[in-house]
Amino acid sequence: MTEPRLDVLAIGNAIVDVISVADDAFIQAEGLRKGSMRLIDAAEAKRLYDRMGQAREISGGSGANTVAGVAALGGKAGFVGQVSEDQLGEVFAHDIRAAGVEFETKAADFGVPTARCLVLVTPDAQRTMNTFLGASQRLPADALDPKQIEDSAILYLEGYMWDPEEPRRTMMQAVEIARAAKRKVALTLSDVFVIERHRDGLMGLIDNGFIDILFANEAELAALSQSDDFDEAVDAIADKVETLVVTRSEKGAIAVEDKQRYEVAAEPVDEVVDTTGAGDLFAAGFLVGYRQQRPLEQCLRMGAIAAAEVISHYGARTEADLQALVARKLS
Amino acid sequence: MTEPRLDVLAIGNAIVDVISVADDAFIQAEGLRKGSMRLIDAAEAKRLYDRMGQAREISGGSGANTVAGVAALGGKAGFVGQVSEDQLGEVFAHDIRAAGVEFETKAADFGVPTARCLVLVTPDAQRTMNTFLGASQRLPADALDPKQIEDSAILYLEGYMWDPEEPRRTMMQAVEIARAAKRKVALTLSDVFVIERHRDGLMGLIDNGFIDILFANEAELAALSQSDDFDEAVDAIADKVETLVVTRSEKGAIAVEDKQRYEVAAEPVDEVVDTTGAGDLFAAGFLVGYRQQRPLEQCLRMGAIAAAEVISHYGARTEADLQALVARKLS
Repeated sequence: MTEPRLDVLAIGNAIVDVISVADDAFIQAEGLRKGSMRLIDAAEAKRLYDRMGQAREISGGSGANTVAGVAALGGKAGFVGQVSEDQLGEVFAHDIRAAGVEFETKAADFGVPTARCLVLVTPDAQRTMNTFLGASQRLPADALDPKQIEDSAILYLEGYMWDPEEPRRTMMQAVEIARAAKRKVALTLSDVFVIERHRDGLMGLIDNGFIDILFANEAELAALSQSDDFDEAVDAIADKVETLVVTRSEKGAIAVEDKQRYEVAAEPVDEVVDTTGAGDLFAAGFLVGYRQQRPLEQCLRMGAIAAAEVISHYGARTEADLQALVARKLS
Repeated sequence: MTEPRLDVLAIGNAIVDVISVADDAFIQAEGLRKGSMRLIDAAEAKRLYDRMGQAREISGGSGANTVAGVAALGGKAGFVGQVSEDQLGEVFAHDIRAAGVEFETKAADFGVPTARCLVLVTPDAQRTMNTFLGASQRLPADALDPKQIEDSAILYLEGYMWDPEEPRRTMMQAVEIARAAKRKVALTLSDVFVIERHRDGLMGLIDNGFIDILFANEAELAALSQSDDFDEAVDAIADKVETLVVTRSEKGAIAVEDKQRYEVAAEPVDEVVDTTGAGDLFAAGFLVGYRQQRPLEQCLRMGAIAAAEVISHYGARTEADLQALVARKLS
């Protein structure tokens, strides 16, 4: 097996975040569940946008944030995701490439615009996400470059992509290529609603040993294992994957390998501004450490450091020199 | 004369800023003059964007920033400016309306996209601006609503609009309507290059008593008065307008009325992040104070407070509760 050209190749939604500050009254008046993600259609996207405050646009997308973080940490990364031939598509493509990520998926006109996520950030730094998937859910299987997948040490799958049918098929095809090439497959569960709707499919994948590295937060782990007891849930799922990583917000994170549990505390942050991207950047830090064959405690620590950076400002793409930050904090 | 419905109506470029962090080496390699603004065409906009780092999009435009600030300070404001029928046009229109500004100019397809400004922010918080004017320079005279102008206490003109021919004609028409309705006309000189190219026209306007309130920074004042001696320059121009306001960056600002000079120090800022919009927000604070018939020292102070807020973060639209901030600082 040749040395892979890329450390991490992600398949995910190609989204531009539209970030606005909102108060709790607005979240309540709109009937939104704070901290959650929901999918919306074009009409609801327009209606909500009209009611939202002034916004800033920053490229996002869970898997895209992760590989942008991998590149910021000095890893070699690629991204596969579908944008439309419009200005937001240009913004997404520019930003991911400017982050140093290989991005070859061609923009295409499906008659729907590039995906956007209306992110409402409340004063407690929680984000409530309203995603219009647009072109993102059209990702066709022929957007895959088998050679690129074979050349990547880790194929990283965004759980959000499980929901629409076409990207799900595309991802399954990517998994087959990666496994045939003996590459690692990582999956992030993304959101409880994904598990609620696709638990059988996801568990099937995990049970069949297709997933090497699984990322989840506590709620997702509970939904997947159908157990509210954290330790029980960890044990149940950890047995099915090589590496299980569970993020626990301010409680830090754990990783389990060969029944051995490793822990890290959350990294202190002066002021938490916007929690969007915390999990995405945790995965980025972890995966870079993993590829550098560092001990799991250090992988977790790198995840915690990257997550702490991204929640200290608006937007889910890191701003600081992450590589220098990690080097300083780990020394 | 009836009480005006709006405090300030601005005519200006309708621009979305594309803000990226850059180091001095990049500015030098690109042959750019740090701190300046230059106009670029579509090809150069594409070329430079491809080389720029990850960016965030935040609505901008000098006059638009000012009226957004006026609204944030509790004033009633309107904006006239041209966007295209594209996503950046939607972003601009959404943001200015969400700021509480009346914006009725219809998006139109001139075969060119909405204006964007590629803003490179260096670690010293200086901004170097590269503006592709696109649809913005097509603002037709029939975009004006004479009633709206007559209903505005102050017509605020953005100097940048002097450069392209059509908006210049549109603005002159607006000036006539405002003067006939006995409203105040304010002008901001925007940039030295505008004065270099249009000094005769601008001086003619000022000499003929068409401008009541003139905003300039030191360099613009020097270019307009053709004098490098600050006091001489102030005296020469102050005689020609009712109110002259000159901003001097970290040296604060002055205002002159009836040969009487008023001064304010710059407001202290914890960390200057991005100086984009400092002058625009200074004008906003000043004009709101002016409309509240406050003493000129207080108008200047309000300008300084608003400017200090906008340079403490990326983007030229204020983020804090400006009205509360000013109330606290003035008490």
